[in-house]
Amino acid sequence: MNTTGRVEAFSDGVFAIAITLLVLEIDVPAEHGHELTEALAHQWPSYAAYVVSFLVIGVMWVNHHALFGHLVRVDRTLVFLNLLLLMVVAALPWPTALLAAHLRDADDARVAGVVYSGVMVAHAICYGAIWWYVTHRGHLLRPEVDRAAARATRVRFSIGAVAYPATVGLALLSPLAMLVMHGATAVYYAFNHLSVPDEEPNGETDGEPDRVLVEQPTGRP
Amino acid sequence: MNTTGRVEAFSDGVFAIAITLLVLEIDVPAEHGHELTEALAHQWPSYAAYVVSFLVIGVMWVNHHALFGHLVRVDRTLVFLNLLLLMVVAALPWPTALLAAHLRDADDARVAGVVYSGVMVAHAICYGAIWWYVTHRGHLLRPEVDRAAARATRVRFSIGAVAYPATVGLALLSPLAMLVMHGATAVYYAFNHLSVPDEEPNGETDGEPDRVLVEQPTGRP
Amino acid sequence: MNTTGRVEAFSDGVFAIAITLLVLEIDVPAEHGHELTEALAHQWPSYAAYVVSFLVIGVMWVNHHALFGHLVRVDRTLVFLNLLLLMVVAALPWPTALLAAHLRDADDARVAGVVYSGVMVAHAICYGAIWWYVTHRGHLLRPEVDRAAARATRVRFSIGAVAYPATVGLALLSPLAMLVMHGATAVYYAFNHLSVPDEEPNGETDGEPDRVLVEQPTGRP
Amino acid sequence: MNTTGRVEAFSDGVFAIAITLLVLEIDVPAEHGHELTEALAHQWPSYAAYVVSFLVIGVMWVNHHALFGHLVRVDRTLVFLNLLLLMVVAALPWPTALLAAHLRDADDARVAGVVYSGVMVAHAICYGAIWWYVTHRGHLLRPEVDRAAARATRVRFSIGAVAYPATVGLALLSPLAMLVMHGATAVYYAFNHLSVPDEEPNGETDGEPDRVLVEQPTGRP
Repeated sequence: MNTTGRVEAFSDGVFAIAITLLVLEIDVPAEHGHELTEALAHQWPSYAAYVVSFLVIGVMWVNHHALFGHLVRVDRTLVFLNLLLLMVVAALPWPTALLAAHLRDADDARVAGVVYSGVMVAHAICYGAIWWYVTHRGHLLRPEVDRAAARATRVRFSIGAVAYPATVGLALLSPLAMLVMHGATAVYYAFNHLSVPDEEPNGETDGEPDRVLVEQPTGRP
Repeated sequence: MNTTGRVEAFSDGVFAIAITLLVLEIDVPAEHGHELTEALAHQWPSYAAYVVSFLVIGVMWVNHHALFGHLVRVDRTLVFLNLLLLMVVAALPWPTALLAAHLRDADDARVAGVVYSGVMVAHAICYGAIWWYVTHRGHLLRPEVDRAAARATRVRFSIGAVAYPATVGLALLSPLAMLVMHGATAVYYAFNHLSVPDEEPNGETDGEPDRVLVEQPTGRP
Repeated sequence: MNTTGRVEAFSDGVFAIAITLLVLEIDVPAEHGHELTEALAHQWPSYAAYVVSFLVIGVMWVNHHALFGHLVRVDRTLVFLNLLLLMVVAALPWPTALLAAHLRDADDARVAGVVYSGVMVAHAICYGAIWWYVTHRGHLLRPEVDRAAARATRVRFSIGAVAYPATVGLALLSPLAMLVMHGATAVYYAFNHLSVPDEEPNGETDGEPDRVLVEQPTGRP
Repeated sequence: MNTTGRVEAFSDGVFAIAITLLVLEIDVPAEHGHELTEALAHQWPSYAAYVVSFLVIGVMWVNHHALFGHLVRVDRTLVFLNLLLLMVVAALPWPTALLAAHLRDADDARVAGVVYSGVMVAHAICYGAIWWYVTHRGHLLRPEVDRAAARATRVRFSIGAVAYPATVGLALLSPLAMLVMHGATAVYYAFNHLSVPDEEPNGETDGEPDRVLVEQPTGRP
């Protein structure tokens, strides 16, 4: 009961619902004739925000999954930190809709972009807090996880802690560039992960470790 | 088939969906320029209500999980009582939206606050009814659960039965204080739980019982 | 892969989401002061429709669960029939909202009531079709299920096939009575089920068969 | 952790939510008296679009399930391709609502129909990409899957790659015919699937291979 199973299942549910609610942000234009085509084209920011936020939440899910793969059980503090993380994930349809609604106007887009990036920073902080807590005492990690190597990955989080606020700054310069950056980062993290090695090499990764889904937490997205 | 598995999975689904639907309550302002920033700041009650209700539902889920951890099977009465509990949980996005919409006006906030606290009272009653039913005959409890200790916890529910209506009164004095109180109570219950001991000490809680997620029902969040 | 597990899990998801989406039907009144209280009282049909539909979907889920408990595997026809059933279940938030919106006006309520009861008839037909298909050849039933007893339960479906259209008639007389009837029927079916006996008595139901969740399909909630 | 279980569970969640969100597309008419009946009849495109999209997503789910039944594990590329597939599936409530809103006007319906069919083409491409990737190296397939036979099925995808864009053309001629075609194709694929044989015959399909749910990927929803 204090194993990771139900916390993961509940988290998976929240990720799956949040990612699927994104579509409610895309309006159904009521215009007719030529204006319908124009209205559909005009709302390109909705499509762009949908694609980027979908990739971002998807990769957040992959990384959440990877982090919990290192754990053998959960405690109340972790459950609470995870709840804070899910609070940010479940909120994402809102900044997505906000950005989509205001991306065409330069000034408004900056405001919406700062909010959007701000929520991403909040996610990075929650994710970092979980990883920090988990590696600090190590009492929840699977026995075979290399504690020293796990702790060493925390340096990368400090880099992320600097990089994420930078996207808030980018939102002020170009909200569209910020959106592209978040999408590109998600795609990058979907394929590139440093893994936390087990102390004893895992015999299952028979010669294709780079192609197999590596369980691995990163500071992102 | 009369084990707890599918009832828990269905309940988890309802909790996860209700908690994720909360975000639909936060409006996307259509204002432009300076007014956009003001509109975003102006709807702070939506953010506050989102955070509190998210924590409340999250802790409700943890406690539901804990309660079912004591059970070895379910019967029709329990399934029905659980359905009543889920009916209240699934309704929570509505009082949350109501409170968010009216928190800035003192008189309206009292009305909305009473509704919000009233739904919390309904949850406490359903949760208490389940725990009362489960501990009354004890026929659904895991064999190792200490029946006498489990029944003894019911006194705490009586206290909760007094405390919850009190938040309805607090809503009349200060709806914002009531909201803060619900959030604080959720955080408190996330970390502090009395556990129902097993008759035979559980060998797995090797020396860190206070930090490990203790399965334990309380009358709340 | 052709076992019942994933079909059940998918169905559970649809039931859980449909039941939780019901809340979106309850409006958040924008009125102020005295009018807010009146607006909240005025929308009592929304609360009534929410409660009844929640119970109805909940009991539908219990019965779906019970039916699949008799199966050892699924085939394409069953998956398709189940998809039709889910199509009706997932649609239920719509007639619920329709009835809630029109219950106060006698003429409009009749129209909405007929639609609401009509969807319930559609559910009964789908459920009956699944049970008919499953008991007809018996090739999907668990080996220990008493085929003759299972087929005999089909008579009850014929009764249901008459009873359900009757609620459409009741909707024309009194839509509110129809709503109460559906709620009462759900509560009745939550507690009263004839079971399909196994050919060999099941040793697990140690003396409390009436209180333990009995796996059993009926033509309804 | 690199097994297929959690990716399937997450995908199932997205399918179940997307299929259940379809109902939000059906409006609740506010008209009174005679006009209520007319308004309900007038929105027949909403019912038609609901039914077809429900069947389409349902059969997409069955095929997704079948495809993953051939796999023994996942890698990062597959997880990413699956994320793209889910992005299209989760988007489906939007073209469904668009088509429902514009099906009665011939010109507008063509625009909406092209969008609807376009999203179906996107799904076919994502599904085909996954099947192509999986059969190309074969490193993720269960050992007993006949690699040569699996690769041979890819010819059928090329046919699908031609057939799907054809529905875009059909949308220009008759959007309603296109909608009917998508529904009919879903029903057809629900019952007719070529299977990928295992190299060693599977002993479990004892004499009724045609009626049992055959795990099998096709190029189509």
